[in-house]
Amino acid sequence: MLNYPDTINKLIESFSRLPGVGRKTAERFIFHVLKWPKDEVEKFSSNIKQLLAHNFLCPNCFNFSEHEGLCSVCSSPNRDTATLCVVEEFHDVQVLEATGAYHGLYHVLGGRIDPPEGITPDKLRVRELLERVKKNNAHEIILALNPDIQGEGTVIYLKNILRPLNVKVTLLARGLPMGGDIEYADEVTLTNALRGRQEIK
Amino acid sequence: MLNYPDTINKLIESFSRLPGVGRKTAERFIFHVLKWPKDEVEKFSSNIKQLLAHNFLCPNCFNFSEHEGLCSVCSSPNRDTATLCVVEEFHDVQVLEATGAYHGLYHVLGGRIDPPEGITPDKLRVRELLERVKKNNAHEIILALNPDIQGEGTVIYLKNILRPLNVKVTLLARGLPMGGDIEYADEVTLTNALRGRQEIK
Repeated sequence: MLNYPDTINKLIESFSRLPGVGRKTAERFIFHVLKWPKDEVEKFSSNIKQLLAHNFLCPNCFNFSEHEGLCSVCSSPNRDTATLCVVEEFHDVQVLEATGAYHGLYHVLGGRIDPPEGITPDKLRVRELLERVKKNNAHEIILALNPDIQGEGTVIYLKNILRPLNVKVTLLARGLPMGGDIEYADEVTLTNALRGRQEIK
Repeated sequence: MLNYPDTINKLIESFSRLPGVGRKTAERFIFHVLKWPKDEVEKFSSNIKQLLAHNFLCPNCFNFSEHEGLCSVCSSPNRDTATLCVVEEFHDVQVLEATGAYHGLYHVLGGRIDPPEGITPDKLRVRELLERVKKNNAHEIILALNPDIQGEGTVIYLKNILRPLNVKVTLLARGLPMGGDIEYADEVTLTNALRGRQEIK
């Protein structure tokens, strides 16, 4: 165990909390930071602090918002409020927004149902989703959850709980990704691509 | 290109300055940090700031020092001041200290000679090394440089410049690393291991 000065040990601890960063990588980061110009280090520190000062949840869709109050999507007058896109995390909102192909609102669930990890539906923003569906008089709910076991489980749960509300529930299309290789596609992806095949007109 | 809020864009920039961290990894870090408890984020920010406040160079050996003045090695009364171990970076001091096998002082060169990168001997703390050798009346200089082309070049340069001072110059032993596999050892390592073979008594 290396006997670093306290200042460095503390920062190693902070860096090690980052995903995929172990002690060795944290050390490497710090030796790098030690060589940065002073103002860059200060900026780094204050940028992290800023994140804390500007970390609000949109009270409407639970998207990240820089300011208290509605997020940039919810406060836009040009969005279709009758379409809600349910995503797991704030990050997914950013990725979908980057496509420019969606003009409705979002609903950040805050994760997906994963009972072994203790994430039951009451830990997620399901109740809030139902309330919004009624309040917005939504006509379509797009379930944009990750296509894996937990995501699929959450889709089934939400489909069932949304059924009594008489709203159209859709799923993002499953199929071959652009640039994907049929030769290397897994069976589930290929089955989905076959089942969802579309006529060329 | 994702259209993140300013707060996040700025932090992405800072994180991306770290070695091996690109935009995607920086984003991942931030989405993680956004879920941390508030006090952990604050600690992270202030730990980085602390690094800036406690980043001094030991005026003697140029090791990192938390306080102004001599570093913990140089200020210890139990070290052999007539032995100097020359290392490239502060990090190497920490690694050698962790062995507990060395009781002399250090000299942090600040890099190794690498002319294509513009690192010529005058950019390193060579002059300071010569002064210390004379001042401390050193009897042994251990060159603990990394065993690669630039390190070997630096060793040759230092050996020549130290010769007139009539001081013993040694090199860290080269050979098989513990847990290493002879079958997979490269030729240079194996040649070094053969040349440096030791009699078992």
